[in-house]
Amino acid sequence: MTKPVYSTPDEVEAVFYEAFMRCDYEVMASLWAEADVVCVHPGSGAIVGYEDVMRSWAHIFSNAEKPDIQFLVGKRTDNEDLAVHVVAEEIASAGGPASVVLATNVYQKFDHGWFMVEHHASLVQASSEGHTLQ
Amino acid sequence: MTKPVYSTPDEVEAVFYEAFMRCDYEVMASLWAEADVVCVHPGSGAIVGYEDVMRSWAHIFSNAEKPDIQFLVGKRTDNEDLAVHVVAEEIASAGGPASVVLATNVYQKFDHGWFMVEHHASLVQASSEGHTLQ
Repeated sequence: MTKPVYSTPDEVEAVFYEAFMRCDYEVMASLWAEADVVCVHPGSGAIVGYEDVMRSWAHIFSNAEKPDIQFLVGKRTDNEDLAVHVVAEEIASAGGPASVVLATNVYQKFDHGWFMVEHHASLVQASSEGHTLQ
Repeated sequence: MTKPVYSTPDEVEAVFYEAFMRCDYEVMASLWAEADVVCVHPGSGAIVGYEDVMRSWAHIFSNAEKPDIQFLVGKRTDNEDLAVHVVAEEIASAGGPASVVLATNVYQKFDHGWFMVEHHASLVQASSEGHTLQ
């Protein structure tokens, strides 16, 4: 498969959340760098490496109703080949209450465009004193 | 107060964990950029801005026994003025069991050296299938 070319971090991010909502494994697999990437799902340890990270998304997608996700980028720290976004996510599945999640998404520019290299997501507990950037 | 000059991301990181273990507010205040920084404590929402982030550390330090923290940097994604580290932390307080935490720490280079601009920490649940980079 020839990977699509993403020309900005925001473009990768938009495609990431679309793929997440549609439980679209092929698109999710297209936007991560085939490198030493890191993914932390809420409450979990670090999954390291493209193949293991992809296996985790396949597992999530095989068990999930397609979720509805609202996301808001609260902070961008970008330079010419590295970008860090702090994102508030509100994730709702059919019938259930929405979960509020905070994510740090990291993108890196390679010769063939921008790719995701890290997604670190954590659940915001209802009793939390912090806020969700909104 | 003249802020100390930190010449690498690793130097800021070492001082961050020393300050955390000693509950040393002055040192913690010296290593964050006085800018639009973001801090996510485990289970919490995002705290945004230097003053609110410092208030959160003052609160943590006022309530805490000095913790013992082992930390291991599992992944560095660095370029000349931005650095993202994924760090496994094992935090133990007197008498209690250790907590396993994963952190994404982000450092940025300013005219006067490197500073922390983000700390995103999340608790790894005991039942987690992921691992802690160790």
